[in-house]
Amino acid sequence: MSATMSAETPAYDAQNVFAKILRGEIPAHRVYEDDHTLAFMDVMPQGEGHTLVIPKAPSRGLLDAEPEALAALIASVQRVGRAVKAAFAADGLTVFQYNEPAGGQTVFHLHVHIIPRREGVPLRRHEGGMADNAVLAEHAERIRAALKG
Amino acid sequence: MSATMSAETPAYDAQNVFAKILRGEIPAHRVYEDDHTLAFMDVMPQGEGHTLVIPKAPSRGLLDAEPEALAALIASVQRVGRAVKAAFAADGLTVFQYNEPAGGQTVFHLHVHIIPRREGVPLRRHEGGMADNAVLAEHAERIRAALKG
Repeated sequence: MSATMSAETPAYDAQNVFAKILRGEIPAHRVYEDDHTLAFMDVMPQGEGHTLVIPKAPSRGLLDAEPEALAALIASVQRVGRAVKAAFAADGLTVFQYNEPAGGQTVFHLHVHIIPRREGVPLRRHEGGMADNAVLAEHAERIRAALKG
Repeated sequence: MSATMSAETPAYDAQNVFAKILRGEIPAHRVYEDDHTLAFMDVMPQGEGHTLVIPKAPSRGLLDAEPEALAALIASVQRVGRAVKAAFAADGLTVFQYNEPAGGQTVFHLHVHIIPRREGVPLRRHEGGMADNAVLAEHAERIRAALKG
């Protein structure tokens, strides 16, 4: 990362919510984990089965991540994406990745949204409210089962 | 790719528009190219500087791509993303990747959208019309210059 990049990108804040999830300080409905990445349910889903994939290495967004972290991240996005599509018998997947508030980012640890989609079902707003905990637990179990299948 | 995946994912169609761009059969405002990826301006931009990054290897979407192609793709998305952000003095970046029509996909060659964002400027609709050719040429030149910088 060049000096220019450092000047443009705010520093990583280790108190962000996803860093706390990585450290086990707050709970999450985890669906997949390997040495470099973690996947869990979004608590404000824009659609049934909305899942997040994050690198374990600290980076604020796409631009300050190390190449190895990005390669591991996209591999897990593909793996989890296949499971999410199967678990929800989806017709397609919509993938979002937001950088900085102007780009739509609200938690400042790099993350990728995977949303299973069905024909004719629009996305819900991200601020549409917290999902029911039991529903998220059931959805997470469905994705974990698909990952084993 | 397992037999299950093959059954679920339609076959790659080599007559899609991005395959034709890769073969040089139709023009594009190219901003970056390496052995594995190509980046060019989206002709129906959702914001000034809207750029696409694609792998050269044929895959319909995220789920049928080879791991090596995905690693090269995300590395180029980061590289081009830094240049796009600098070229348009953007406050953030929004990244989209759509799979199958239900997921928002309209061209069936894996591609990643990078849209530079400014505070308070909403995204335009993707079907909002073709951009002026001279404007796209100038934007591409700005991104190429940022990639050299």
